[in-house]
Amino acid sequence: MKIMDRIPIIKMGDFLLVSIQVELYDTLALNLKDDLMNQISEKKAKGVLIDISSLTIVDTFMGRTLSNIASMAKIMDAETVVTGMQPAVAITLVELGLPLQGVNTALNVEKGFDYLKEKLGTL
Amino acid sequence: MKIMDRIPIIKMGDFLLVSIQVELYDTLALNLKDDLMNQISEKKAKGVLIDISSLTIVDTFMGRTLSNIASMAKIMDAETVVTGMQPAVAITLVELGLPLQGVNTALNVEKGFDYLKEKLGTL
Repeated sequence: MKIMDRIPIIKMGDFLLVSIQVELYDTLALNLKDDLMNQISEKKAKGVLIDISSLTIVDTFMGRTLSNIASMAKIMDAETVVTGMQPAVAITLVELGLPLQGVNTALNVEKGFDYLKEKLGTL
Repeated sequence: MKIMDRIPIIKMGDFLLVSIQVELYDTLALNLKDDLMNQISEKKAKGVLIDISSLTIVDTFMGRTLSNIASMAKIMDAETVVTGMQPAVAITLVELGLPLQGVNTALNVEKGFDYLKEKLGTL
């Protein structure tokens, strides 16, 4: 399988949607941060949805990356929601003492959208 | 990088969204077909959006898989739109004589949604 170096960002109205399907390694995480911040600025996005429903493992690097993205987006005035976390992942995160600092979560992308819309007062 | 065997399907209202980020090999393509048809049935989805914006190559296998999905979805009464095709991919498809039979296309996911909504008369 070809290794890709960028995760596609999908614009949906005022929001950006990212579906993470592979383990994030260094370059991939760096590019994702770069691309997301650029897109927030270019597209004037007000929210970022990161779907991790296909991930069965979230390690400290991934946790930190998600936290970082949320903090960076916040500075750019955009909210971040992580959606679709598998139950086992949530259990592991807490047991490992890895709180996803500053990261909002929602059960799935639809609920994530609702959360963002409500937060931004556009629902 | 861990090889995954399922591509996540994201439900968005009446539609299902799939972001293809890796080359489709046999099992992955089979599972995608299975999962999509099951989800169309379960969630009563009326349309399927397949975003291929991160693919730089589409081979005959991928082309056939996309066509098959569109045909199967049609039987289940759902429309399929392939979005985000890179210019180079479109050029290659035509030069190789690989028409994406029965597949609708749109420049990006947003336009794909608009197309589906218009087609279904819900815009």
